[in-house]
Amino acid sequence: MIGRLNHVAIAVPDLEAAATVYKDTLGATVSAPQDEPDNGVTVVFVELDNTKIELLYPLGENSPIAGFLAKNTSGGMHHVCYEVEDIIAARDQLVEKGARILGDGEPKIGAHKKPVLFLHPKDFSGTLVELEQV
Amino acid sequence: MIGRLNHVAIAVPDLEAAATVYKDTLGATVSAPQDEPDNGVTVVFVELDNTKIELLYPLGENSPIAGFLAKNTSGGMHHVCYEVEDIIAARDQLVEKGARILGDGEPKIGAHKKPVLFLHPKDFSGTLVELEQV
Repeated sequence: MIGRLNHVAIAVPDLEAAATVYKDTLGATVSAPQDEPDNGVTVVFVELDNTKIELLYPLGENSPIAGFLAKNTSGGMHHVCYEVEDIIAARDQLVEKGARILGDGEPKIGAHKKPVLFLHPKDFSGTLVELEQV
Repeated sequence: MIGRLNHVAIAVPDLEAAATVYKDTLGATVSAPQDEPDNGVTVVFVELDNTKIELLYPLGENSPIAGFLAKNTSGGMHHVCYEVEDIIAARDQLVEKGARILGDGEPKIGAHKKPVLFLHPKDFSGTLVELEQV
């Protein structure tokens, strides 16, 4: 079912500092910061040869990563995103296998303007998993 | 400097259960468990189209992931591994930029029989970073 690893998301307490580390220290190509108000984050994309790292910083009052950063003050790996061809088929298969979908179980439009779902970390070895339809 | 994302490592408290979730629930291709006594882990490789997920389980008495699993009893994302062409040149550039190398600063032979280094999480937004020469 899952295809490519679309991205690894890392929540960071200082977006400019994190982007500078990826650009200057690790020598990667990084984008300008991009506000995603619908998702409550500002994102810097780190372009690798085969996938992306997304550096996430809270945007607005109810950012979904604010709680994570309160607990992990240095930042940390927040989620992985796997690509699927059909998110409804994927969801139905996951539910049949006993996995829990976060929220109301309906896909939302994610940061790449494509349908996404998040899966319960307790069902995936403590790892928050995003699925994105591509 | 950094090239491909070689893998994302996820430490898991139950290797068979985690492998089954990736195989049956997420429909991915997973390897048989592979003991890596020199690295203190047993690994299941999850083969994605563009990279790998490595499910890590402690092996032996001084496993480097035992402390992580004691703190994160459900498991969790443990590190990311980026590929570099020349690990000595990469290390020297990192040190010059002020990043800290874990251990004695000399590359070790990693799980793929290639030279690796680990970088201090505090210098990389709370994320443990492995570099592997390819």
